[in-house]
Amino acid sequence: MRMLIPALTASLALCLTPAMAKPAKAKPPAAAPQPPAVVAAALRDKALTDTTAWDVLESLTTEIGPRPAGSPAMTRAKDWAVAKFTALGFKNIKVEEFAKPSWSRGAESGSITGPYPFKLSIIGLGGTVPTPAEGIEAPIVIFPTFADLLAAPEGSLTGKIAVVTQPMVRAQDGAGYGPAGTLRRRGPSEAAKRGAVAFLMRSASTSSSRDPHTGGTGYVDGIPKIPAAALGVPDAELLVRLAARGPVTVKLNLASTTSATTVAWNISGEIVGSEKPDEVIVIGGHLDSWDPGTGAIDDGAGVAITTAAAKLIGDLPQKPKRTIRVVMWGSEETGGSGAAYLAAHKDELGKIIIAGESDFGADNIYSLELPAGAMKDPTFAALPGLFAPLKILLSQTPSTNGGSDTDEIHAAGVPVFALNQDGARYFDLHHSADDTLDKVDPLQMNQNVAAWASLLWLIANSDIDFRKVSAAK
Amino acid sequence: MRMLIPALTASLALCLTPAMAKPAKAKPPAAAPQPPAVVAAALRDKALTDTTAWDVLESLTTEIGPRPAGSPAMTRAKDWAVAKFTALGFKNIKVEEFAKPSWSRGAESGSITGPYPFKLSIIGLGGTVPTPAEGIEAPIVIFPTFADLLAAPEGSLTGKIAVVTQPMVRAQDGAGYGPAGTLRRRGPSEAAKRGAVAFLMRSASTSSSRDPHTGGTGYVDGIPKIPAAALGVPDAELLVRLAARGPVTVKLNLASTTSATTVAWNISGEIVGSEKPDEVIVIGGHLDSWDPGTGAIDDGAGVAITTAAAKLIGDLPQKPKRTIRVVMWGSEETGGSGAAYLAAHKDELGKIIIAGESDFGADNIYSLELPAGAMKDPTFAALPGLFAPLKILLSQTPSTNGGSDTDEIHAAGVPVFALNQDGARYFDLHHSADDTLDKVDPLQMNQNVAAWASLLWLIANSDIDFRKVSAAK
Repeated sequence: MRMLIPALTASLALCLTPAMAKPAKAKPPAAAPQPPAVVAAALRDKALTDTTAWDVLESLTTEIGPRPAGSPAMTRAKDWAVAKFTALGFKNIKVEEFAKPSWSRGAESGSITGPYPFKLSIIGLGGTVPTPAEGIEAPIVIFPTFADLLAAPEGSLTGKIAVVTQPMVRAQDGAGYGPAGTLRRRGPSEAAKRGAVAFLMRSASTSSSRDPHTGGTGYVDGIPKIPAAALGVPDAELLVRLAARGPVTVKLNLASTTSATTVAWNISGEIVGSEKPDEVIVIGGHLDSWDPGTGAIDDGAGVAITTAAAKLIGDLPQKPKRTIRVVMWGSEETGGSGAAYLAAHKDELGKIIIAGESDFGADNIYSLELPAGAMKDPTFAALPGLFAPLKILLSQTPSTNGGSDTDEIHAAGVPVFALNQDGARYFDLHHSADDTLDKVDPLQMNQNVAAWASLLWLIANSDIDFRKVSAAK
Repeated sequence: MRMLIPALTASLALCLTPAMAKPAKAKPPAAAPQPPAVVAAALRDKALTDTTAWDVLESLTTEIGPRPAGSPAMTRAKDWAVAKFTALGFKNIKVEEFAKPSWSRGAESGSITGPYPFKLSIIGLGGTVPTPAEGIEAPIVIFPTFADLLAAPEGSLTGKIAVVTQPMVRAQDGAGYGPAGTLRRRGPSEAAKRGAVAFLMRSASTSSSRDPHTGGTGYVDGIPKIPAAALGVPDAELLVRLAARGPVTVKLNLASTTSATTVAWNISGEIVGSEKPDEVIVIGGHLDSWDPGTGAIDDGAGVAITTAAAKLIGDLPQKPKRTIRVVMWGSEETGGSGAAYLAAHKDELGKIIIAGESDFGADNIYSLELPAGAMKDPTFAALPGLFAPLKILLSQTPSTNGGSDTDEIHAAGVPVFALNQDGARYFDLHHSADDTLDKVDPLQMNQNVAAWASLLWLIANSDIDFRKVSAAK
């Protein structure tokens, strides 16, 4: 399933100068600093053959494994993050703790009990209530879409398990996740409102794997909380075919626990600016993950890409003028880390130049979005040449989404940018047991690092004020 | 993952005569019978848009589900087979019972217990002994290949779990299954001989899915029987990376039971020949399957393809001269059904013209192998034209393998043929939870039906004696 880019890599190999083929750790030359565009191009080319991102991701997924917020693994991940920032030469390493209620999966099983016994592939949605210890066994009612469930009268599902089998659309920009996520978040309460005793959905997945996909759900106050799980795609299709033939009963056993007293951490490290160290570019990925896989594409990759990009800049003899801060956010999957980040940094918001998160896997970036007006600023005059060999569009659409952990600071006035990744196969893997290291293509991940490093260099060595170009637009 | 063949289908649609676009059930015309090559071409073209194979496969995988020999599901499958043969107009329907010890999977789990807890994706190999109820927990030793395990001295694995992480090679003809199958069958005893307390192998799989692949293993007399399981490919890779960093311990719990008293059935139905009904062409697939999936590609597809091909012939106004017998073999996965078939048919072996089994999924057939000398017989003069639009090579290699359930009658003198399917993605799915209906491409399955139906017609309407052409060679 890997989409290799040998032609791209081969053509870029030609761009590597002899000087860049070696580590750039030698004593800085006495000559005058090179123009930003020249350094950015060298960073881009070096990134394509650098192993930092892979090494970070391999380390995280191997040594820590899955790391839900509030879990013992997340505590180990926090220590890992500090050690990794330290080893890679980051400064001002900070661990910012915040309160985070946590949810923990227990033993789970699901099966068809009639017309014949069959073991279903299921996974509880994040935050689901458990079933009673003896489980829940009930007839199912199939709804081809969420709209069909919404159209069912109240009371029509009394004593039934609602099964919504709406398929998810594959799209490069991930647009299929909108309706799938809505179903996952709202489905349980809408089913319960109509009398259902449990809720099942075809996984929010674009693959045909049996591995089901989890993800956060929630409950509306005043409506009974019913157990909620996702089905493997072939399992959902089997239920549809069986239900077309006659009554089907399903049994579910979900054990889960919650704790209101756990904590999470946003961990950060900096490449400190030489001229304007208090002007900060905030980037990063989220360190927490769902539990069935090892959080490689979601979002070890984002942590690895942004850490590697900043580290490549930190290795240069010439320091960036502004500070680049990498944040490993600590609770994206369960309620977000952005509110905590905003609370901890509300006094420096005016000094945050721009923010962006990498949180959509590690496949090639295909477009860049900047705040309104910024694309025409002289800061980015070199971008067409810089990004052409990486095959990245310079989007005319202003950036409005910097990644979910930046939402709160963005709402508080911080500009954001987006390096949009190709997400065509992201939802084959996302939130499932198959989110593992082997699914990441190192060549594509390095295309990401190349884009981040070269773009960061331009911004960090400019005086651009995104708030002003945006206002001028 | 589907490989569609729209161009092929479009070009073949042009071959459909108006007469063939309608069901051929109308009263036979008074005109003289058409030459075999003409009827074969019409069968081929009709097969490409016929839904019988899909309907059979959909029915089997939906109504019966997984069907290991000796299970209650296999008893339901036997009744399904009789009903399906009857509904499709087959004659001389027979249920041939034979004794079959059976093995049944119980609850299974595996986890890394050190350096940190991690739930592994595992599946017990078919026939494995169970662990003690409390499980087995032990340090692991990694062997990159089976040869590395064989090179380990006796006693060197005392108290350890042997983990062989040999990857499987993807090949169109399935050649990668040779070494993978050898490891699966011989690995447990070779590990036990060296003192191991359990055996784990990277799944015999060409995919990167977490879903592990089962399959039969066995034990050598006189060597301790140790529990044996397969690991999801990413799980095996994680163990390799962890073991490179330090000691790793794994805990396994496998529950399984065996019964020496169960039975299995080979079920058959016939399209009876008009001129030489006692000359029989034996084809089929196997009805039994492994338990994690629903046995769609292994081997519901083979059952569906051969049943549909024979049924299309049975629907013709003109009957074949020789009899076509479809066998749904009942125990391919656990010891084979061929010995029982040979025992039940030893008195008619001389009347079995040729035999062939479809047991490699439902992707396109790419080559035909016939017994030595047969390809040049006038019977097959029309084959180049018949098979060209289906894109099937006429192999110069004589057929020596007709499918595993035909091995015993072949060894007893029955000629065999092979319509070789493209198996490039077969081992992504085979013996895993992902062997489900959605993985079958109906267009490719119908290319199979077209090849089987047209070839069968040529053989059934000829006087060819494969034993003589082979001897003449």
